[in-house]
Amino acid sequence: MVALNKQLKQINPETGFSAAARYVAQYRAEHPKASIVSLGIGDVSRPVIKPVLNAMHTAVDDLGSMDTFQGYGAYYGIDELREAILQHEYAQFGFTKDEIYVSDGTKPDATNLLELFDARCKILLPEICYPIYRNGAYAMGRKVYTAPVDKNFVMRVPKEHFDIVYICSPSNPTGLAYTRKDLKKWLAYCKREEAVLIFDNVYESFISSEDVPHSIYEIPGAESCAIELRSFSKKASFTGLRCSYFVLPRAIDGGLFKERTINRFNGASYVAQKGALACFRKDALRLIQKNVQAYKDNAAFLKHGFQDLGFQVAGGEDAPFLWVAIPGNTDSFAYFKMLLEEIGVVVVPGIVFGKAGDGFFRVSGFGSAKTTKEAMKRIANYYANQA
Amino acid sequence: MVALNKQLKQINPETGFSAAARYVAQYRAEHPKASIVSLGIGDVSRPVIKPVLNAMHTAVDDLGSMDTFQGYGAYYGIDELREAILQHEYAQFGFTKDEIYVSDGTKPDATNLLELFDARCKILLPEICYPIYRNGAYAMGRKVYTAPVDKNFVMRVPKEHFDIVYICSPSNPTGLAYTRKDLKKWLAYCKREEAVLIFDNVYESFISSEDVPHSIYEIPGAESCAIELRSFSKKASFTGLRCSYFVLPRAIDGGLFKERTINRFNGASYVAQKGALACFRKDALRLIQKNVQAYKDNAAFLKHGFQDLGFQVAGGEDAPFLWVAIPGNTDSFAYFKMLLEEIGVVVVPGIVFGKAGDGFFRVSGFGSAKTTKEAMKRIANYYANQA
Repeated sequence: MVALNKQLKQINPETGFSAAARYVAQYRAEHPKASIVSLGIGDVSRPVIKPVLNAMHTAVDDLGSMDTFQGYGAYYGIDELREAILQHEYAQFGFTKDEIYVSDGTKPDATNLLELFDARCKILLPEICYPIYRNGAYAMGRKVYTAPVDKNFVMRVPKEHFDIVYICSPSNPTGLAYTRKDLKKWLAYCKREEAVLIFDNVYESFISSEDVPHSIYEIPGAESCAIELRSFSKKASFTGLRCSYFVLPRAIDGGLFKERTINRFNGASYVAQKGALACFRKDALRLIQKNVQAYKDNAAFLKHGFQDLGFQVAGGEDAPFLWVAIPGNTDSFAYFKMLLEEIGVVVVPGIVFGKAGDGFFRVSGFGSAKTTKEAMKRIANYYANQA
Repeated sequence: MVALNKQLKQINPETGFSAAARYVAQYRAEHPKASIVSLGIGDVSRPVIKPVLNAMHTAVDDLGSMDTFQGYGAYYGIDELREAILQHEYAQFGFTKDEIYVSDGTKPDATNLLELFDARCKILLPEICYPIYRNGAYAMGRKVYTAPVDKNFVMRVPKEHFDIVYICSPSNPTGLAYTRKDLKKWLAYCKREEAVLIFDNVYESFISSEDVPHSIYEIPGAESCAIELRSFSKKASFTGLRCSYFVLPRAIDGGLFKERTINRFNGASYVAQKGALACFRKDALRLIQKNVQAYKDNAAFLKHGFQDLGFQVAGGEDAPFLWVAIPGNTDSFAYFKMLLEEIGVVVVPGIVFGKAGDGFFRVSGFGSAKTTKEAMKRIANYYANQA
């Protein structure tokens, strides 16, 4: 038989996201009466807002008449959505609509972008990061390297040359954001090494800290070496709808990525794009702000809860994730199983985000206030009984 | 600067689909009053049918309540859609739901599947084919080879070894379909060479000929070496909605492609998937049949029209495309420009589908009956005046 992609086989499923999800599913099946609450989810707990629903109803009707039908052609996104993204977020940095790409999700975008570059490019990731960068690159047959992170989980600038650098800030999983100063160091590295920064900024709307930029392009020089990714998934509950976008400055590719897009993608779903467009309405912006605040409130609640129990906790202020050190630095997958089996609480074992993540677990504020409180109560009780 | 993907630069845009589209767009801009009718389009001219619109309205409302919300998780498609595809089309061949993948389009699928295989795999295409196979593979940094076609535009079985073979049947652009006998030869080749056949069957619903199978799996042995792709795009006007699917037998990959999917894709849009599910309702199947018949009627009309003018024409019976030999075997891009400039009729120059396609042009039955008739009238008048 034809040789399969060996690297695809090396995506280790025993300690990955899907292994954790499979473990939870199996546990549920074997304990149908167990009460399980999840702090592990990256999915949202708030429905799609009304202005977006209304826009999508109209979009569905558009497709029912040839006067308003939208078919092939919007490979990089429908014009009005690209224009709205530009005007609201990127025109201030001097970009044009031509540099805005609408897509069906940041997960595919993050590694699809690698097709723009030579296959031998050296790719650098932080040793603790969203596993999709590594696994997606593996699936594409690419090699990746990792750099250690400092005590704030910021990747240390290496001495060696790399061509492509991934940074997710505000960060999944650590919940911390790179400061302006951190990012300046990385942009200086990219300039010196003629490298490209893939800047995953999907949690931008959760930023509170003043020294954290809302866009990489706030820092001069980024416009010639950084690609910024954003998404509607979390803030506007598009996790099932699928619509994201990114800025790819012409200074980086001279427009070459369009050739990739035309030949490998057919555009995001029209209905989802019209829903995304409605996210820029004033009433929608207010409702989205409410979503964001609810998740931030959950994160703050969890942070205080864990701190009160004496845990070391990072994150939660600029992203809805908390990165919690496991007491006694236990194997994170074992700790994840223990919490599930003892008290029915789901967290994400840190090893999912790289070997250096073992000894930690991730919790998220994306649950409802109710499940968040219930989970925290169970953890507090568990440790009270241990004491 | 980081080295860009050289192969991406080699996708020759001067004779490609986009060059033709650009030429038409520029001509329109320069001649705003020109009356232009298109036989070139691959897009549909019939709106999305009512049962699908209704299902999508319900799906939009599903997202407005957490009781019915659908977020992450349906990487391979929502269960009920995979089940419907299985029951209607593939259970008869012994497949399971596990082997059905729902996606956002056959264009991305056709080359995404290459990530399942070793990067050094030898890929074979017919010398006249849908350019996305070649360009998509180029974008991924792959090498492709082509084999000549016979007088019926069926790819000749080569003596050499290849690992992956692409066949589109019923064929875009030639409008002809591979017969059972043709496909048996290719399956024997795949068995002998331990190769995989990527069988693009998106025009299946247009098949009329008795000796053309509706699925590659009608032929014994295909279940161990063929991947079949299908789509809702043309028959149900999903060109802007984006929903397709394919069968990847476990005998080929042992389920490995799931690892690729999880790490590189987040599922098709929920609303589009619910619309696709409605396509299997009885009332929807009847309306889809009407769509298909309308396009087939257009193709038949065009075929007679060209034949009456003395053109050599292939296709039109099992696919809504006609493949027309240019009188005097002129350069196809020049002929395309001439038709546009002289009579305002758009066709697709054959060279878009490979060098061997020069000397031909493609027309499609996807336009409305009105524009189809108008275009044919103009061509008839043009040749009457030439005579």
